[in-house]
Amino acid sequence: MHKPLENERVITGGIVLTMDEDNTVYDNGAVCVAGDTITYAGDAGGIDAAMAGRVIDAAGGIILPGLINTHTHAAMTCFRGLADDLDLMDWLNNYILPAESRLDAAKVHTSTMLACAEMMLSGTTCFSDMYLFEDAVARAAAESGMRAVVGEVLYDFDSPNYGPIDAGLRYTRELAEKWQNDPLVSIAVEPHSPYLCAPDLLEKAAAISAEYDIPLIIHLSETMTEKQGVFERYGKSPVAHLADIGVLSGRTLACHCVVVDDSEIEILRRFNVKVAHNPESNMKLASGIAPVPAMLEAGLCVGLGTDGPASNNDLDMFSEMDTAAKIHKANSLDPTVMDARTVLKMATIDAARALGLDHMTGSLVVGKKADIIIVDTDKPHLTPRYDPFSLLVYAASGSDVDTVVINGRVVVEKRRLLAIDTDRIMAEMKALSDDIRRMHNWRVNRVI
Amino acid sequence: MHKPLENERVITGGIVLTMDEDNTVYDNGAVCVAGDTITYAGDAGGIDAAMAGRVIDAAGGIILPGLINTHTHAAMTCFRGLADDLDLMDWLNNYILPAESRLDAAKVHTSTMLACAEMMLSGTTCFSDMYLFEDAVARAAAESGMRAVVGEVLYDFDSPNYGPIDAGLRYTRELAEKWQNDPLVSIAVEPHSPYLCAPDLLEKAAAISAEYDIPLIIHLSETMTEKQGVFERYGKSPVAHLADIGVLSGRTLACHCVVVDDSEIEILRRFNVKVAHNPESNMKLASGIAPVPAMLEAGLCVGLGTDGPASNNDLDMFSEMDTAAKIHKANSLDPTVMDARTVLKMATIDAARALGLDHMTGSLVVGKKADIIIVDTDKPHLTPRYDPFSLLVYAASGSDVDTVVINGRVVVEKRRLLAIDTDRIMAEMKALSDDIRRMHNWRVNRVI
Repeated sequence: MHKPLENERVITGGIVLTMDEDNTVYDNGAVCVAGDTITYAGDAGGIDAAMAGRVIDAAGGIILPGLINTHTHAAMTCFRGLADDLDLMDWLNNYILPAESRLDAAKVHTSTMLACAEMMLSGTTCFSDMYLFEDAVARAAAESGMRAVVGEVLYDFDSPNYGPIDAGLRYTRELAEKWQNDPLVSIAVEPHSPYLCAPDLLEKAAAISAEYDIPLIIHLSETMTEKQGVFERYGKSPVAHLADIGVLSGRTLACHCVVVDDSEIEILRRFNVKVAHNPESNMKLASGIAPVPAMLEAGLCVGLGTDGPASNNDLDMFSEMDTAAKIHKANSLDPTVMDARTVLKMATIDAARALGLDHMTGSLVVGKKADIIIVDTDKPHLTPRYDPFSLLVYAASGSDVDTVVINGRVVVEKRRLLAIDTDRIMAEMKALSDDIRRMHNWRVNRVI
Repeated sequence: MHKPLENERVITGGIVLTMDEDNTVYDNGAVCVAGDTITYAGDAGGIDAAMAGRVIDAAGGIILPGLINTHTHAAMTCFRGLADDLDLMDWLNNYILPAESRLDAAKVHTSTMLACAEMMLSGTTCFSDMYLFEDAVARAAAESGMRAVVGEVLYDFDSPNYGPIDAGLRYTRELAEKWQNDPLVSIAVEPHSPYLCAPDLLEKAAAISAEYDIPLIIHLSETMTEKQGVFERYGKSPVAHLADIGVLSGRTLACHCVVVDDSEIEILRRFNVKVAHNPESNMKLASGIAPVPAMLEAGLCVGLGTDGPASNNDLDMFSEMDTAAKIHKANSLDPTVMDARTVLKMATIDAARALGLDHMTGSLVVGKKADIIIVDTDKPHLTPRYDPFSLLVYAASGSDVDTVVINGRVVVEKRRLLAIDTDRIMAEMKALSDDIRRMHNWRVNRVI
C-alpha cells in the first residue's frame, strides 16, 4: 500500500495507460508525483491518499504520458498558412527562405512561445526542435515549462543567426554548455541534411555529438529529388553516404526517411539509428509515404513528429497519430499495420527513445519525470469507450486534453493554460504576421 | 443598404466565406436570417442593424456554410472503437454484422442522436445516412434539428428491420411519403452495392428514384475485392454494370469509387453521377486511395464524407478535409492538387450538389436556408491568420466551431449544444455499449 505524503500529488479517477514495457493498463488507476518525479503508477486501490497533498480527479478520463513531438520547427508558426498547396521549391525559395532571412531572436522567441502554447494545449509535453536562433527556442521552452531538445540548424552557407559556417559549431557547443544542467532543455547538434551539409561539416557535427554524448538530428532522404542529388554528388544514397563518412550512430535521429529502400533500412538498423516519422508534412509537401511498417519490421525505433507548422499546418500530435495509423494501411492495403497501440507508442515511449530521453520520460514509471496528460472522454465523439487506445488514436483531438503536467508542474488545468499569457503572445504574433505580410508584400493564397 | 427588421437575426463581426459561385469572401462580413432563410450575405457595411431582432457576434472568427457529410452510417457510433486494425472481412463478419443483427429501432435512434450531437458540435449541419431502421434515423435528425438525407439500406437478404427483400422497397416508399413535407429530412433510395444487390433490386430502386425524383445512393467500387467479384459475376466493372442496367443518372450518388479507372470515371461523368469521397475510412479499412484529382479533372462533382464512425472513427468533417487535402498530394507526389479552397467546396456547396440540396444549402446566398457555422479563430493553433481557407482545412478541428445554425435555428451556442441532452444520450449509449460488449462477449482490442 503506497501512502502518498503531503508533498505528493495524486492523479486518479481514470484509466491509466502506463506505456511501460508490458504496456500495462490500470482500468481504475492512480499516479503519484513528488516534486518532478513519479512515485507510484498502478491501481487506485494500491494507495491510501488520506495524507496526499493534492488529488487531481481525472473524472473518468484517460491518464497517459505526455506526447512527444520528435521533429518540428516550432517558430514556423509565424508562417502557418502563409503559403500552401505549392510546389516544394516554389514554397521554399519564394516564400519560406526569404521570410526566414528576416527573422531574429525576438521573432523566433515569440513564434516558439505560440507553438509551446499550442503544443501544451494539445497534450504535447516535449518537443524536438531544429531551427534558427535556437537559444531563443530554448528560452521559450524553459519559460513556458516545456521539455525540449533543441539544436541550431547547420548548413554550408551563412546563417542569419550565427553568421559563417564554422560559427554554427561554436554556437552549438555554447548551447550545450549553457543548457547542460537545465531540468527541461537539452541540446542536440543538428546539421540540416546531406544535401545542404558537406562531409566536413557533417563529420565535425558527429564529433560534437560524440564529445557531449548528445543526439545528432538530421533531415534524411525526405524526397526523391534529395536522394537523386546526393547520388549524383557522392555516387551513393543519402543513408549510405552518412554511414560511409561515420555520421550514423545510436545517437542519430534521422528525420523523414521517406525515400529509403530495404537496404537503407538495414543500414539504419545496423547503426541503431532512430527515425522521426512526419506523415502529415510528408503528405502536404507531396514528399511521399515513408515505409514505416518495414522499418518497424526491421526493428527500428520510430518516433512520431509533426514537422513545422508551415507544412502541416498544426502541432497536434493526436491528429498526427490518426494520420500515421491510417496512411500506411491505405499504402500497404493492409488494415492490420500500424495498430493504435503501436502508434501511441510512437508518440510516447518510442519518441522518448528516439530522443535519448527514455530514462526520464515517455512512460508512467516510478522514478521517471512526471510528464502526464489527462484526456477528457466525457464527450459525444469519445463515446462509447470500448478501447482507450483506439479512442486516443482514431477519435480524440488535441482539444480533448484537459490537464497537462510537465516535470511535475501543472501547466494546463481544465484546458486553461497556466504557463503562458496566450492573449499577449497571440497579439505579438498578430503584429509579427502583419510585418511579414507587408515586408514581402505577398499575395496570400486567399487573394490569389 | 439592407435594414434587417426585428424578425431578422444578424451574424457579423467576422470574415464571411460565402462559398457562392464566385467564392466571394467578405473580410468584414454579415449574414442576415429571417425565419429559416438567408436574407443578406455581404459586407457588414451594407446593413443597418439598428432594428435587427438579434445580433450574433462572430468575434473576429470565420462565418461559413455548415459542413455537409455526404456519406455516413451515423448509428454506428455504438460500434466506435469496438474493432479496429482488423482485416476487412474479419471486421465485417466477426464484429459488425453479428452486432447489427441485434439492433432495433430504439438502439439506432439512441446511436444516431449521439452522432447528431457529435456532428453539430463539429460544425456539420447536414448528413447523408445509409443504414437500418432509417425511420428512427429520420426521427433523430428531426428531433435534434439536423438536416439529413436518409435511406434504408437494401440488399438481397432479409433485414432485421423490414424483413424480406421486397419489403425494403415498400419501406422506402413509405419513408418517402411520410417525410416528403419535412423541413429538415429528405429521403433517398439506397441499395447497398452492386455486390449485395441483384440487378432486379437495383432496377426497382432506380425506378423509385425516378418516380419520387429522389437520390439513389449506393456503395460503388470501394475495394478491389468488390470489383473483381462483380467482374466475375457480370463480366464487367461495377460502374459499367450499373450503367448497363440503367441505374446511373444525375440523381445517383456513388460512395467511395476507390477502385475506378479513367474509363469508369468517363462513364460516371457521362451520366452526371455524383461521388462521395471518404478518405479516412478508405485509409483505415485499407481499401486504397480514390483517384479524386482525376475525377475533378473530368468535371465530376465530388462531395466529402466520413463514412461510419466504426471505420473512421469520428464524424469530424474538419479532420476529413485535412486528410482529403493531404492524401492526394502524397499519392500523386503533386503538392498543388486538392488545394484548401477546392476541399472546402467539397465539404459545402459541392456536397450539397452531390445530395441534390444545392438549391437550399451549401453556400451563404440570399434565399437559401440558413445553415451557418462560426469558427472561433482566437486560439494559438489558429494564429496567425493569413488565409481562412488554409486555417479551416489544415489547422482547425471540429472543436473550434463556436456557433451552429441549422434552418435558421441556433443549435450550438458558444460550444453548448442546445438541441440535445447530451448527458442523457451518452448515458443511454453507455448502457447500450455495455450490452453490446456482454451480448457478444467480445475480446475488445484493449484486452486482446
